[in-house]
Amino acid sequence: MSGRAARTRERILATSLALFNDLGEPRVTTNQIADETDISPGNLYYHFHNKDDIVHCLFERFESRIQEILVTPQSRAADMEDMWLYLHLIFEVIWEYRFLYRDLPHLLGRDRKLQQRFRRIIDRKVATAAAILEGLVSSGVMAASPEEIQAVAENIALLATQWLTFQQLRHRAAPLDQQLGRGVYQVISLVVPYLRGEARTLLDRLSRVYLV
Amino acid sequence: MSGRAARTRERILATSLALFNDLGEPRVTTNQIADETDISPGNLYYHFHNKDDIVHCLFERFESRIQEILVTPQSRAADMEDMWLYLHLIFEVIWEYRFLYRDLPHLLGRDRKLQQRFRRIIDRKVATAAAILEGLVSSGVMAASPEEIQAVAENIALLATQWLTFQQLRHRAAPLDQQLGRGVYQVISLVVPYLRGEARTLLDRLSRVYLV
Repeated sequence: MSGRAARTRERILATSLALFNDLGEPRVTTNQIADETDISPGNLYYHFHNKDDIVHCLFERFESRIQEILVTPQSRAADMEDMWLYLHLIFEVIWEYRFLYRDLPHLLGRDRKLQQRFRRIIDRKVATAAAILEGLVSSGVMAASPEEIQAVAENIALLATQWLTFQQLRHRAAPLDQQLGRGVYQVISLVVPYLRGEARTLLDRLSRVYLV
Repeated sequence: MSGRAARTRERILATSLALFNDLGEPRVTTNQIADETDISPGNLYYHFHNKDDIVHCLFERFESRIQEILVTPQSRAADMEDMWLYLHLIFEVIWEYRFLYRDLPHLLGRDRKLQQRFRRIIDRKVATAAAILEGLVSSGVMAASPEEIQAVAENIALLATQWLTFQQLRHRAAPLDQQLGRGVYQVISLVVPYLRGEARTLLDRLSRVYLV
């Protein structure tokens, strides 16, 4: 592919992502994408056969981004900073590809392959969260049984995955970036009661940062 | 309406609910409903103008069922038994009207009135959960700050609302009634770390009941 064609392809993807995120993927047509990218429908078709092609390509990028994050620190036990970083990065990627998360049953219901791949991502979310929590226990910051760790890890994955959908159900009007900060706060609140000593007052401090 | 007409109407609603729950509402046609109810499409039309009419009627029944549950005990502080009862009844209604919960963005996205009414139900879920948690605190079973109570109540409402959708994303194959027991377990796990003394070992006992 020529440099120019590659650049056009990138522009199509960036425009599609922006339109999908703003309007919801079902409401966007390929003609609209061509129009916004300032190319002809024929040129768009040269790069992508249909909208599903574009969705798949964006999903692949989302997938490789989130898989980079969902790697447990190997050399040492995880600490609260890993937890923070993990959550911030997760919510950042979810925000960047929010059209995927807003209506998952719709998007995955029509494509079994995407569904399987998304399922694997959720499994990784649970496993990474559990590994970090185990790290917190072994470094003495947190007190929890293996059953409790498993239950909290599942709840973390559920909350991170379903947060945007739930916010949309609750108050469609609120700016989504505020909702995202609140999402991090809610996930942290799953872990806080298991923390020992000083770390236990974390939620109070957080509420001042996130809930303004 | 004659007794016979009223009975036919009930049969249509029962058949619709069963079909919606089994196949998902978007995949069910009014002809299919008439066929399964063993009446003519004309007779169905006499009772309901279209599928949305049926969905609305079922939603109203769901709404009045869940509103009966979402009432805080007034005369005394809530205890762990209220919590249990509350969760079991909530998950029972969610299970009974599971077609509503499986794909909420799709269902509510096309109907602003349903959306507003569902929003009020979620608000009630949060308020009732918070009231029960406050009861647990005032009876000394639980230790939590007002901010913690609010965060947990939000997480309870989110988990109860999004549980079926998340399970569908994770493993479509598992029998849904097992998934429901696991849902109650996961919600209880949100409360357990705040419990004092004996109540704290609750999750271990629960895991033997629910996770078989």
